[in-house]
Amino acid sequence: MSKLTILKIGGALLQQPEALSDCLRYFHELPGHKILVHGGGRRASQISKAMGLTPRMHEGRRLTDEVTLEVVTMVYAGLENKRTVAQLQALGCPAIGLSGADANIILSEKRRGGAVDYGYAGDVVSVQSEQLQALLSAGLVPVCCAITHDGQGQLLNTNADTIAASLAAGLAPDYEVELQYCFEQPGVMRNIKDPASLIPSLNPDSYAYFRANGVIVDGMVPKLDNAFRAVQAGAKRAVIADLAGLKSGTGTEVVD
Amino acid sequence: MSKLTILKIGGALLQQPEALSDCLRYFHELPGHKILVHGGGRRASQISKAMGLTPRMHEGRRLTDEVTLEVVTMVYAGLENKRTVAQLQALGCPAIGLSGADANIILSEKRRGGAVDYGYAGDVVSVQSEQLQALLSAGLVPVCCAITHDGQGQLLNTNADTIAASLAAGLAPDYEVELQYCFEQPGVMRNIKDPASLIPSLNPDSYAYFRANGVIVDGMVPKLDNAFRAVQAGAKRAVIADLAGLKSGTGTEVVD
Repeated sequence: MSKLTILKIGGALLQQPEALSDCLRYFHELPGHKILVHGGGRRASQISKAMGLTPRMHEGRRLTDEVTLEVVTMVYAGLENKRTVAQLQALGCPAIGLSGADANIILSEKRRGGAVDYGYAGDVVSVQSEQLQALLSAGLVPVCCAITHDGQGQLLNTNADTIAASLAAGLAPDYEVELQYCFEQPGVMRNIKDPASLIPSLNPDSYAYFRANGVIVDGMVPKLDNAFRAVQAGAKRAVIADLAGLKSGTGTEVVD
Repeated sequence: MSKLTILKIGGALLQQPEALSDCLRYFHELPGHKILVHGGGRRASQISKAMGLTPRMHEGRRLTDEVTLEVVTMVYAGLENKRTVAQLQALGCPAIGLSGADANIILSEKRRGGAVDYGYAGDVVSVQSEQLQALLSAGLVPVCCAITHDGQGQLLNTNADTIAASLAAGLAPDYEVELQYCFEQPGVMRNIKDPASLIPSLNPDSYAYFRANGVIVDGMVPKLDNAFRAVQAGAKRAVIADLAGLKSGTGTEVVD
């Protein structure tokens, strides 16, 4: 099976031109097939404010009313996606920017009403791997943003970590998939202020232990849940690290 | 040669949900390969204003400073492109949204300084027809927005009529291309208030005559220049009409 690396980069990195440039160079130099997945939440909040709107969040997730959906569609699928694609093209990387609606690659459904109304938030239903394989086989490098659709004409705001994991899971039957989450920390740490407390590897048991003891909390939980979902669906490897860690092969590896 | 229809729709249509829906159904039902090209200028002006910016135009062309480039990239490549793609997907049309940077399909260069500084406005340099052919052969339907790139990482705002004509010219060696400009009028008219004054056909001589006599003026001139460029480059047919005209086969046909 061909190797496929799925690299997810966060919205903070997108706003640091030098670090982003460094990361895109790293991505471009990865051997084999690859897919980049990006967020853009920080810029979306800035643009919302510039338009006189107040971003509303719940447990780190954006509450997406109709106008907020317009903003995230503009920022994720427009500004951040096309800037990233243009930069990759400048490196000689044959990037093609995609939302889940493009070539129908990611179908999602509007999150059902619970205690919190997330509005136009989409949960991934399926990944159309044939279309992605066709693009990869044509030598293209998909750059996926955090917008999907429901197949009925409705765009939906979808968590970028989840998209990366869904792509990893959906493509695992056909590629030797490595999922890389690039974020601001060297990896998952016992003590966020102490780089030496990096946890080099997590399996379901140690993950359950660290969660029960309050070592792994907040935004790290859905990220790790996504990473476990990917390896459980057959991804060969999932790793969470900063760019230096990804380059040197350190970080936190998630194993099934 | 396979038939390829390139339909360009304007920003006004994008803001009329029912008319747009009607137009996308028409597009979906076109036989053979097809490409949709869209603008989005009206929404870009609205979003600019919502962000406290004042859109600046010169002879119908937008003066694109850095922040305006951000706005048009958001609106054209993000909001309008993805909404259109999602609507086409809902009809069963395998749409894929593209800027010129995606798969490097349209390379442009920043307009050189003249009397007017258009800022980040791009003039098309080349169309990479191989990539477009690969997408078309994969059964996909490209939906192209009016953003291109210079290959050096810079996005550029590019006139949608010009993009449609450049695609028609670039793909004419490989397809039997028909270029359709869909706008608000039944076609080119001697008297804009009298539908009966429709000019059914224009060749270079009659076009020169009508221009010299002040019958064809303003925004119609670059549109017709583009249409003539397409047929002179080998497009089989170019027509300018409203949706009713395109459906019934009327409008103004541009012949070489």
